[in-house]
Amino acid sequence: MAFQNDLFLRALHRQPTERTPVWLMRQAGRYLPEYNATRKQAGDFMSLCKNPELACEVTLQPIDRFGLDAAILFSDILTIPDAMGLGLFFEQGEGPKFNKRIEAEADIAALGRLDPSAELRYVADAVSTIKKALSQRVPLIGFSGSPWTLACYMINGGGSGDDFLGVRKWLYSRPDALQQLLEKLVVAVSDYLIMQIEAGADAVMVFDSWGGFLPEAHFERFSQKHIKAIVERVHAASIPLRRRQGFTDGQPTPVIVFVKGGGQWLESIAATGAEGVGIDWSTHLGQARGRVGSRCALQGNLDPAALLGTEQHIRAEVARTLESFGPVSSGVGHIFNLGHGISQFTPPDNVACLVEAVANYSPKLR
Amino acid sequence: MAFQNDLFLRALHRQPTERTPVWLMRQAGRYLPEYNATRKQAGDFMSLCKNPELACEVTLQPIDRFGLDAAILFSDILTIPDAMGLGLFFEQGEGPKFNKRIEAEADIAALGRLDPSAELRYVADAVSTIKKALSQRVPLIGFSGSPWTLACYMINGGGSGDDFLGVRKWLYSRPDALQQLLEKLVVAVSDYLIMQIEAGADAVMVFDSWGGFLPEAHFERFSQKHIKAIVERVHAASIPLRRRQGFTDGQPTPVIVFVKGGGQWLESIAATGAEGVGIDWSTHLGQARGRVGSRCALQGNLDPAALLGTEQHIRAEVARTLESFGPVSSGVGHIFNLGHGISQFTPPDNVACLVEAVANYSPKLR
Repeated sequence: MAFQNDLFLRALHRQPTERTPVWLMRQAGRYLPEYNATRKQAGDFMSLCKNPELACEVTLQPIDRFGLDAAILFSDILTIPDAMGLGLFFEQGEGPKFNKRIEAEADIAALGRLDPSAELRYVADAVSTIKKALSQRVPLIGFSGSPWTLACYMINGGGSGDDFLGVRKWLYSRPDALQQLLEKLVVAVSDYLIMQIEAGADAVMVFDSWGGFLPEAHFERFSQKHIKAIVERVHAASIPLRRRQGFTDGQPTPVIVFVKGGGQWLESIAATGAEGVGIDWSTHLGQARGRVGSRCALQGNLDPAALLGTEQHIRAEVARTLESFGPVSSGVGHIFNLGHGISQFTPPDNVACLVEAVANYSPKLR
Repeated sequence: MAFQNDLFLRALHRQPTERTPVWLMRQAGRYLPEYNATRKQAGDFMSLCKNPELACEVTLQPIDRFGLDAAILFSDILTIPDAMGLGLFFEQGEGPKFNKRIEAEADIAALGRLDPSAELRYVADAVSTIKKALSQRVPLIGFSGSPWTLACYMINGGGSGDDFLGVRKWLYSRPDALQQLLEKLVVAVSDYLIMQIEAGADAVMVFDSWGGFLPEAHFERFSQKHIKAIVERVHAASIPLRRRQGFTDGQPTPVIVFVKGGGQWLESIAATGAEGVGIDWSTHLGQARGRVGSRCALQGNLDPAALLGTEQHIRAEVARTLESFGPVSSGVGHIFNLGHGISQFTPPDNVACLVEAVANYSPKLR
């Protein structure tokens, strides 16, 4: 069954679009009163993630309210380490934390192969529930954290105030052990994303939120090559999967890779084979297009702080962002998004202003 | 009187050097037991900054221990907002905080013109005390935070866990007020650096620690142009100052600009007119050299986490860093440094290993 709105997938495949599609990282979140109401009903954040019906409800809220062009599974980038037994939790007003952390080689050896269809069954259930509820209005994006970013949290036991210095220490003291952990995570992330595709995800995204903290000399070895392995596994597995789902184009499920702080390494990120590359607000979209725009679609890159400003500034920033990408010609693709997740302090009306500005302005660039 | 060791200044002026000079950001710090002893004597961090004799003592400690090629004034990047009445303090294990913060236009209007020779007399006294104690062994670097970075702290009231989202909000809601604050800081930082030069600083460095959080579209307007104005003021004022100090070369005091996270904007940073540009560990030194190396010297860029690793890794990383810059030919300059401040967890012996590795390996690249 065709999508009512397939702008997102067309842009991701660098096919012609009549306007620029838009969705926002963390679009189902605390800035929405309806989200807060559902979350209250669920209890805490992880209970909301683990309840397929309620996860479906919050996934659809921003689609219903703003008419965004893609839905993204409501979940967390850290479900895998949680399922591996590290015990993810969130304290009021704080970032993610783990009960246990990886401290030594033995902790890595002790990590068994994850069976997502058992330990992360709730995610597959959420995807199929959302997919059904969406009834082909817009495509659904599945996602996971990247191996490096998961390893950062698993070793550090939570977020970091010092660019994960303690994890970077491993690069210079036990790189082999770190690679063992990353290789286990490649398998887990791949299996997990493939499970999401099996359950109905139309595209998947890999978040390398902390890739930008890697030294340039080590980014490829400790992050890029592992993401590349995941893209290859997802592509290979998704071709027969999609055939069974009735698609006749022989194409794999498209992948988007986002490395926050990775603006200097776009060529390397594009070389993962991903169909889309996320761009944060420190990189000029037009320059990114010149470097990798003929190989992949670009997604981004408005500063989330712009949504805390006035409507006049939001309209100006949307126009500037669209113009920085430039005229949308054949063979390039732009998906409008923020350069990072939306802030909890965003007035919902400002998101409506952004969506309207993209709809009004982007056709002029065609 | 000539320096016993002027490698640092020669590299900064892109003149021939027989080996690569090295100093480390935050080289006088908590990783040194002798520093901790002096700090205990002073009481807290700010009391140490404000005591010229003890500030001199800690400034010289890493020179004495490691034979580094430049000394840097022991102080903090936030002395200016402190002198403007915001009340800087440090709590155990936490970053800098202010008693008062800039919340509205009226708070900016209320900031008077700073007279560094009165309110920051202790810094001039520290510089002249250190300069005397050094007795021309190596050059002395003075420094300040950049206007944007100072504004981040002044508006936020301290550090930030969200890339200074609340400050970036000003870009989109009251950019004019923010510019007023930045312009006041241009005058204060310039006057402050000129005072340090008058007291004996041989070079000055501007730390734009949070410049990398600016969106690319706004970096020039909210940070670069203000740093450029400072470089121009410092250059203009230092020519007659140096003449009075007995220098006959007619040259200004050299300036180093370091924008953490600014690797994508090196051309713009070099266009400030600074003699040296700091490079963090996310940028390849050789690529940086290709982009701006004929206009300015480059300083950096070892990951500080490498100093937490094994000696074998430290030697390999030093060699890799020197090789990434490439053969040191005429008209280019490289000053070895870290890509950010040294960690408090660094074993001092690892710094000795680094200094020795630079001394042993760098002559081979000539």
